[in-house]
Amino acid sequence: MKIFEEQEIRQFIHVNEQAIKVVEEGFSALAKGIVTLPPIMRIDIPENNGEIDVKTAYIKGLDSFAIKISSGFFNNASLGLPSLSGMMLLLSSQTGLAKSILLDNGYLTDVRTAIAGAIASKYLAKKQVEQVGIIGTGTQARYQLEALSLVREFSTVIIFGRNDLSARRYAKEMETQLGKPVIIAESIEEVVKTSDIVVTTTPSTQPLIKAEWLHPGLHITAMGSDAEHKQELDANIFEQTDVIVCDVKTQCFRLGELHHAKSKEIITDDSPIIELGDLTAGFKKGRENQKQITVCDLTGTGVQDTVIARFAFEQLTNKDK
Amino acid sequence: MKIFEEQEIRQFIHVNEQAIKVVEEGFSALAKGIVTLPPIMRIDIPENNGEIDVKTAYIKGLDSFAIKISSGFFNNASLGLPSLSGMMLLLSSQTGLAKSILLDNGYLTDVRTAIAGAIASKYLAKKQVEQVGIIGTGTQARYQLEALSLVREFSTVIIFGRNDLSARRYAKEMETQLGKPVIIAESIEEVVKTSDIVVTTTPSTQPLIKAEWLHPGLHITAMGSDAEHKQELDANIFEQTDVIVCDVKTQCFRLGELHHAKSKEIITDDSPIIELGDLTAGFKKGRENQKQITVCDLTGTGVQDTVIARFAFEQLTNKDK
Repeated sequence: MKIFEEQEIRQFIHVNEQAIKVVEEGFSALAKGIVTLPPIMRIDIPENNGEIDVKTAYIKGLDSFAIKISSGFFNNASLGLPSLSGMMLLLSSQTGLAKSILLDNGYLTDVRTAIAGAIASKYLAKKQVEQVGIIGTGTQARYQLEALSLVREFSTVIIFGRNDLSARRYAKEMETQLGKPVIIAESIEEVVKTSDIVVTTTPSTQPLIKAEWLHPGLHITAMGSDAEHKQELDANIFEQTDVIVCDVKTQCFRLGELHHAKSKEIITDDSPIIELGDLTAGFKKGRENQKQITVCDLTGTGVQDTVIARFAFEQLTNKDK
Repeated sequence: MKIFEEQEIRQFIHVNEQAIKVVEEGFSALAKGIVTLPPIMRIDIPENNGEIDVKTAYIKGLDSFAIKISSGFFNNASLGLPSLSGMMLLLSSQTGLAKSILLDNGYLTDVRTAIAGAIASKYLAKKQVEQVGIIGTGTQARYQLEALSLVREFSTVIIFGRNDLSARRYAKEMETQLGKPVIIAESIEEVVKTSDIVVTTTPSTQPLIKAEWLHPGLHITAMGSDAEHKQELDANIFEQTDVIVCDVKTQCFRLGELHHAKSKEIITDDSPIIELGDLTAGFKKGRENQKQITVCDLTGTGVQDTVIARFAFEQLTNKDK
């Protein structure tokens, strides 16, 4: 049983084409119905403003699968500690024995989450993109933009963050990394109205994007909401959306943006909602023309964890060969 | 973050009075309603005759809690590997960060399971016990007897196992360990009819004990059934039981002996079923006289894992002080 530390994992696993392929295969397996995907196990510790999620998925026939423990403790900043952490266990699906512990402190979750965002844009955004908008200025704001640049070319980025300092730091970093202008917007409205793709990456509990700001051709990926009380999009956005996509329908109906739209009866069990795996597997079409408005709601699924943990283990154990 | 190996854990953690106290406190916390206990996460891998369970529990106010991964892969024997394995993660309930990984390969589960059995007998068996009966001859058969000897004195042991060789080996080992005669029975009927306490420790999927073998004063602890398809007791035993106890009612109604009794409408949601924590916390009485027939159904709960992992971590980190 091999234990890998964060530093080593960061050195060998990156947001790149290979990782996109691996995560796409995971989503396709979901669509093919060959994934055992138990509901997320969640432990809330409200007195410490914390929660822990356990996710897992077994893709039938594969020799290993992951169990991921991820934590979010939002008083940690005041203790000088990161809010988010976690680790992944890779178990043999033949013997149940542990093959590896990946002490990634949430890095692999960042990677697989960013890649799901890129996959959403790959199938749903227009081919020709001028400006990309990002709401939020945290770690995922960085990775989402990095991943997005693998699937679409774009000229400029416009960002919005509540904290001016964080926004400026983020803009500067991304300008250097991408070699493209990164504009700091005055408002979320400005971001949405001027972008072809918008990615929301916040822990917001109040809708940030209003339906009246949507415009033909827009694609939105909302990746922040992964709990009942979180919400980034006004529920009535789904009244104007031509193509609604999500990672796992049952989960998004419980935890994601779709949860709020469903409770307001804007969508129902019978609404034509596509799962991301239906796009990667080629079972359904994403965007069909330049005018459609598309939205993808991501809550994060155990199948992403299983494929990224398997990929990381493979890369880390083959690195000396 | 400290990682401990099985050997070190085995050296410092034992089935003893201290561990009984710790597990009793866990059950009492459950009864007091101060435990967050998410449902068990289960991944079935039927093509490899395997299953993995994830259990957890957070006792409000305590600074850490465990997430336990345990596996049972029943083709492993043919590969020369143990069928059961597992590990425990101890996380800070203040920051979500990992405090320890206990690579116990299921040892701590064996300990906390045996201790729950001892606690059941402590509150439910007669004070004066002549003979103890054990059904099954595996690892738990050993630990259950060891734990039981901490809470009751008894003169002889009678055992039954399907495999003659295993039964003889088990009998010999326990005679040496306990310094008491261990008789090998011809049948399960003989065990039940001649014992004051019977502990069933098998993965049986067919009832092993029949109602007509019960007798006044008998206590049975059934610890084998922890999945829908497992069963050690005939469901109609519960028609003749004066005191029905279980570890967690909702869980036993889904996975344990009570599940089968409920599906046959022998018990209902309104039956007077006591949880083990009600006994340890002193909220309810166990056995009240020499004539009662008592049964305890154990499925195993995350709260046992949390208290034993915390105890192990404490013992292991204080050992040099």
